[in-house]
Amino acid sequence: MTIQVFGHKSPDTDSTGSPIAWAWYLKEVRGEDAKAVLLGEPNTEAAFMLQRWGLGKPEIIADVDEGAPVVIVDTNNPAELPASINKADIRGIVDHHKLVGGLETKGPIEIRIEPLACTATILHKMIGKDMARAPEAVKGAMLTCILSDTLEFRSPTTTQEDRAVAHALAEELGIDIADYAAEMFAAKSDVSAFSEAELLRMDSKEYAVDGTKLRVSVLETTAPAQVLDRKDALMAAMKDVAAEDGADEVLLFVVDILKEEATLLVPNDRVKAIAEASFGTSVSGDHVVLPGVMSRKKQIIPVLKAA
Amino acid sequence: MTIQVFGHKSPDTDSTGSPIAWAWYLKEVRGEDAKAVLLGEPNTEAAFMLQRWGLGKPEIIADVDEGAPVVIVDTNNPAELPASINKADIRGIVDHHKLVGGLETKGPIEIRIEPLACTATILHKMIGKDMARAPEAVKGAMLTCILSDTLEFRSPTTTQEDRAVAHALAEELGIDIADYAAEMFAAKSDVSAFSEAELLRMDSKEYAVDGTKLRVSVLETTAPAQVLDRKDALMAAMKDVAAEDGADEVLLFVVDILKEEATLLVPNDRVKAIAEASFGTSVSGDHVVLPGVMSRKKQIIPVLKAA
Repeated sequence: MTIQVFGHKSPDTDSTGSPIAWAWYLKEVRGEDAKAVLLGEPNTEAAFMLQRWGLGKPEIIADVDEGAPVVIVDTNNPAELPASINKADIRGIVDHHKLVGGLETKGPIEIRIEPLACTATILHKMIGKDMARAPEAVKGAMLTCILSDTLEFRSPTTTQEDRAVAHALAEELGIDIADYAAEMFAAKSDVSAFSEAELLRMDSKEYAVDGTKLRVSVLETTAPAQVLDRKDALMAAMKDVAAEDGADEVLLFVVDILKEEATLLVPNDRVKAIAEASFGTSVSGDHVVLPGVMSRKKQIIPVLKAA
Repeated sequence: MTIQVFGHKSPDTDSTGSPIAWAWYLKEVRGEDAKAVLLGEPNTEAAFMLQRWGLGKPEIIADVDEGAPVVIVDTNNPAELPASINKADIRGIVDHHKLVGGLETKGPIEIRIEPLACTATILHKMIGKDMARAPEAVKGAMLTCILSDTLEFRSPTTTQEDRAVAHALAEELGIDIADYAAEMFAAKSDVSAFSEAELLRMDSKEYAVDGTKLRVSVLETTAPAQVLDRKDALMAAMKDVAAEDGADEVLLFVVDILKEEATLLVPNDRVKAIAEASFGTSVSGDHVVLPGVMSRKKQIIPVLKAA
């Protein structure tokens, strides 16, 4: 039975590119029958990556079958995985997020989690010298993952290892990192095709903070005006999204990749109180700019207070 | 604050030696303030290892403090760890057991689980060329862990990697594996100092099988008569141990390392039914010999049926 390799729901670049890279390795180097699949439509940056490197779009699956062999990359959170994940035969996990608990395996398997910015960096280490056998498309996907997750090394999650692997891949591929990242971020920033509800759910994770359920959404962009021009419609959509998803509030952080700051929308007094308690700032009006804030993992989640 | 490195409760050789090896690496190679500790008295084989290699017995701790930095090796099961484990600051996990779920970390940390026979083999890979800096005592402890967990390569959990690392360490240390393993197993087999209840809990894990709670205990020995001579007293003690530990039955497998077989004690009709359903054998009398059975992980747990 073919091993399905996938990342999390609402696939971003790392959850699209890392399954492709790891499935290549499992198949071509380890000789296993493996293929990359997706748990949803890739975002615009991930779609750019697929096209740029001539990679076909992996099949999108809705769930996994009981006993089906799977390998999970870029998450270990059952909430971000298919409903039947614990009935599948989980063969491996490679991730760079905190251990959430909830996944169970039938026997000892290969699990590798490291505090690096990007799953693809961990895969690069695991593949080691067999990277020499990787086709350009796989190397290009991995480079795109790292530049995406590190926001071209601007994110405070960036480590020396992410940086070194990205530079090595760019050199092998003859890619100018600044030019290429600009193309990637332009693709990511083109969100004109999405509804407000889709934007709020595009890169979004739920957290329980002091008993309050917060859907923490991030939009990374080099064209923040394109999102902020839709501020009123976005704030109006928050109520429905929160109600449908069982959250108390939606927090939307619009991350300006080039200015290295985030704008948090403030639709009501509760979000105002959360913003002031969490970021030590004072809010007047319907948004607040948070200088230097780029990483949900490092700079938002650890400081969130329900007020 | 010093990072405490520990294995599971009821420390066997791997849960005693691997914390010592990893604490050495964290301290001397990575420059972190780390020390090995134990969650209970080491078993007789582990005590032999400490003495043979001039390693002091690590401090035994009863629980961990809130926020205390810890690294866990040789388990990922909260039931085998201190009560407050999820309040500690878990900095790393290295293990070779199935993922159980239940541990949570505050951020992304280093987690490495591989389907090898022994934690020390994984540590050896992670330490890599820095093994050249390891003192003989650390190498000796790692060799002892691998020979213990593989039962000198007899256990079906043994992989080529475990074998290769053990042979490399033995050669560096000038150790004859057969002679040294015989000394280790003699130490492990000397259980005269332990009460029946202690023997039943020495290397024991609880499993829920079809709604029945089974405490599955293993005693690996080169002198099975020393245990089997106490058969009646052991079966009498099972009732109290099961009642105190909230289990329905205690299954004691006495593994004869040299004959490569296990003897399961059969104190009552329910255990008889479990034995017959699980191992496809027919039981008459108060025990049954299971040829070739040496590994709880590979040969007992996967086939257990509550009958």
